Amino acid sequence: MTQYTAIHALDQATALRPGSENQYLGRFPPAYANMVGPFGGIIAATVLNSILSHPNRQGDPVSITVNFTGPVADAPYEISVRIARTNRSNQHWVIELTQDGATAVTATALLASRRDSWEGEDITMPDVPAPGEVERLETGAYMSWLNNYEFRVVKGGFVPDGQEGERSDATTGVWVRDAPLRPLDYRSLLAISDSFFPRIFVRRQQPLPASTVSLTTYFHADASSLAAQGDRHLYCEARASRYHQGFFDQVGQLWGADGDLLATTHQLVYFKG
Amino acid sequence: MTQYTAIHALDQATALRPGSENQYLGRFPPAYANMVGPFGGIIAATVLNSILSHPNRQGDPVSITVNFTGPVADAPYEISVRIARTNRSNQHWVIELTQDGATAVTATALLASRRDSWEGEDITMPDVPAPGEVERLETGAYMSWLNNYEFRVVKGGFVPDGQEGERSDATTGVWVRDAPLRPLDYRSLLAISDSFFPRIFVRRQQPLPASTVSLTTYFHADASSLAAQGDRHLYCEARASRYHQGFFDQVGQLWGADGDLLATTHQLVYFKG
Repeated sequence: MTQYTAIHALDQATALRPGSENQYLGRFPPAYANMVGPFGGIIAATVLNSILSHPNRQGDPVSITVNFTGPVADAPYEISVRIARTNRSNQHWVIELTQDGATAVTATALLASRRDSWEGEDITMPDVPAPGEVERLETGAYMSWLNNYEFRVVKGGFVPDGQEGERSDATTGVWVRDAPLRPLDYRSLLAISDSFFPRIFVRRQQPLPASTVSLTTYFHADASSLAAQGDRHLYCEARASRYHQGFFDQVGQLWGADGDLLATTHQLVYFKG
Repeated sequence: MTQYTAIHALDQATALRPGSENQYLGRFPPAYANMVGPFGGIIAATVLNSILSHPNRQGDPVSITVNFTGPVADAPYEISVRIARTNRSNQHWVIELTQDGATAVTATALLASRRDSWEGEDITMPDVPAPGEVERLETGAYMSWLNNYEFRVVKGGFVPDGQEGERSDATTGVWVRDAPLRPLDYRSLLAISDSFFPRIFVRRQQPLPASTVSLTTYFHADASSLAAQGDRHLYCEARASRYHQGFFDQVGQLWGADGDLLATTHQLVYFKG
């Protein structure tokens, strides 16, 4: 049996302690540091954790939208949560993360009780080499957060290598999982849905100032899909649609190791360049 | 010059009157009625209108997420808006629509001041016949809201015709514009981003209970793109990714008549079947 670290860095980074009613308190550790503040995927996973920890939670996540309204400082934060509506089979939440009275994140989320239905996919996982056949990306020289993941780049490149000019599209395909290993749950799936490098880096083959302003992830995985996935790799593919007047979007898919689509994700990114 | 109706149905349907501070009041007219309550696209456009009408608004819409938390009754509603944060070049909003004290919609939105940047697209508009070469869909027998649009179905069918079995994917391509004609603005673009028939109808070629629970639209159009588009058709293409345990997602693109991508849209839909 796999031995897991006693307290994984992701669990430490998304940990919350209860404050007053409908309020949680925390502080992001340096392990997931990005250029400015923590990796957005960890911020999103922490926001999700606030409602998953709530005593009145009903159901599992099916949708979350996280808006990054301002930089997150290396300082304590508060998360306030509110149930907007609980229906028979779903529950809608509104969430806000503040630091020193200023809003750094707003979010809305939907939990639902899943039940059997007609099943199908309009798209299928691309035919790609298995993770074991693809070299692991050396992340030691990059920002801290990248070292909490194992990336195996299948196609489209990942980081600019300075060896080529602009590309005609920014599609990339990467096998990703937590490092050290950790069985997949909704928090880590959400974090990984924000682990794609900014499409403008890939498209222009150069790093440029870019930051996600809004992230939406739809969870297609139910509890049994997560259990079946365990700590294996996710195949993550993304492209942009349009880069226009300071913003571009990103459209991504996260496939489980068995080829099931576990999440789809979209984000809007502000960039300079 | 084109003569437009004095007060277009869309303007009537999204009209608001100011209530107390940060509050707007309204009632949806029957013109955009759907199976249960008004067409979701009109609800979303009305929510957007609340912040576009606000005296402290800064910038134009770049992103909005609308969660449909419960049915909207044929009764007065209140919309409360809050600026979560105003930055130098963008502004984040949190919005809620209530009826009789119950929350029917939550939303978050981002306005921004656009500026010139590097320009590109990862995808291009499919090569399709011009609107004039495609027959207009007869909507008279359908729900009221459809009669406010001109649909010209290019591919993938639109509504079940009972002539065939399940399809292998739910991709459709349709030319769409307001009827009567109305120059495109952010409200109508958002409404049209929700005008795709539920993917499960197309995929299974039968109507089934389905309702959007969360809609996110990214606006790639700036003010000059909207002006250039005028009242011409938008080419709207969409597919699902996965249908699983009572939910499916939808991924869509809205192209202007000149082939520019004016919006991308995503939604999560609850269905039975």
